[in-house]
Amino acid sequence: MANDEVILLDFWPSMFGMRLRIALAEKEIKYEYKDEDLRNKSPLLLQMNPIHKKIPVLIHNGKPICESIIGVEYIDEVWKDKAPFLPSDPYERAQARFWADYVDKKLFDSGRKLWTTKGEEQEAAKKDFIECLKVLEGALGEKPYFGGDNFGFVDIALIGFYSWFHSYETYGNFSTEAECPKFVAWAKRCMQRDSVAKSLPDQHKVLDFVKTLRHKFGIE
Amino acid sequence: MANDEVILLDFWPSMFGMRLRIALAEKEIKYEYKDEDLRNKSPLLLQMNPIHKKIPVLIHNGKPICESIIGVEYIDEVWKDKAPFLPSDPYERAQARFWADYVDKKLFDSGRKLWTTKGEEQEAAKKDFIECLKVLEGALGEKPYFGGDNFGFVDIALIGFYSWFHSYETYGNFSTEAECPKFVAWAKRCMQRDSVAKSLPDQHKVLDFVKTLRHKFGIE
Repeated sequence: MANDEVILLDFWPSMFGMRLRIALAEKEIKYEYKDEDLRNKSPLLLQMNPIHKKIPVLIHNGKPICESIIGVEYIDEVWKDKAPFLPSDPYERAQARFWADYVDKKLFDSGRKLWTTKGEEQEAAKKDFIECLKVLEGALGEKPYFGGDNFGFVDIALIGFYSWFHSYETYGNFSTEAECPKFVAWAKRCMQRDSVAKSLPDQHKVLDFVKTLRHKFGIE
Repeated sequence: MANDEVILLDFWPSMFGMRLRIALAEKEIKYEYKDEDLRNKSPLLLQMNPIHKKIPVLIHNGKPICESIIGVEYIDEVWKDKAPFLPSDPYERAQARFWADYVDKKLFDSGRKLWTTKGEEQEAAKKDFIECLKVLEGALGEKPYFGGDNFGFVDIALIGFYSWFHSYETYGNFSTEAECPKFVAWAKRCMQRDSVAKSLPDQHKVLDFVKTLRHKFGIE
């Protein structure tokens, strides 16, 4: 795999892109990072993801892999000798896939509503968001990681959202630490890993980005 | 695996449930089928899928696997010696997962709108739906199945929708065969398989069910 060409088409605040950054870092794969301007997408992005036209796209030896969770699993299958993300037992694999899917189906939308809505809609989103974190705390249990003793598939799927928490809390007016201390302890544990620390942007930089978006969308 | 206990909690018109029925049939796994009353869900369903409270749920030796695509992959991994659904090459696996995900993200919603909306919204749904089928035709290319020469993962993910096509066409007022003849040829090819023919309800029975739903929802 020494001569592999790996390119990541990404956009720095994307929690989906962060999944691939972390996965590549965990496997110690060198790659070229290309930050996309989503208002003026590159011809390469449009060529590599003609169906969804979205980042992130992993390009391995010229061939694109779209959808972040599929990319993480692809990385795990190709570079299988190092730091496996998914367990080997089929039932445990199904469970990991279930929780990654739960994150995709539940967390993004309620998180987004925290900074795009107001009043009752925002209150409902806050309730959903915290409930979602509590469900995830239940799935984590007393384990250090969702992957058990090892940082794994669900950890990779979820931790990128943490870089948005300062924004969620600022506009949603709540404290994750007060509501879900075990979740925050898990996130801080993940942040101690080089692969995660180097892949997530600073929470304040994300907040500045969210401020810009709110201004652009006319939300005040 | 001779003493495996396999139970499927399902609801007969569910295209998601059909995926598991087909997967189990392809692997020749005996199982107990339990049809749920979704207005009065069984304690077993609520216990086995406390997060989403949805069918289908595959229960293998007392342990639940939720989300149909995850269940299909679980079946493929546990009963791996017979009729593999996913290819062995990581890139081809990623492609198959991409198209199954595409079906989940695109086809269900536009299909549903065909019989739940009217006027401009319905016209837009019809355009989306046919475009989606044409994209899928492109992915199929000249192969007999999405899995190539073998009926595979994407075929299993997609063919259940075909039992709803008579309903989609009736309320959307279009002919899939006229718009997407290659798609229909693929569907008819799949229907020749025992595993599919026995797992899909009759299209007229689905239409009667949709009529009942429209009446219940006050759509006329």
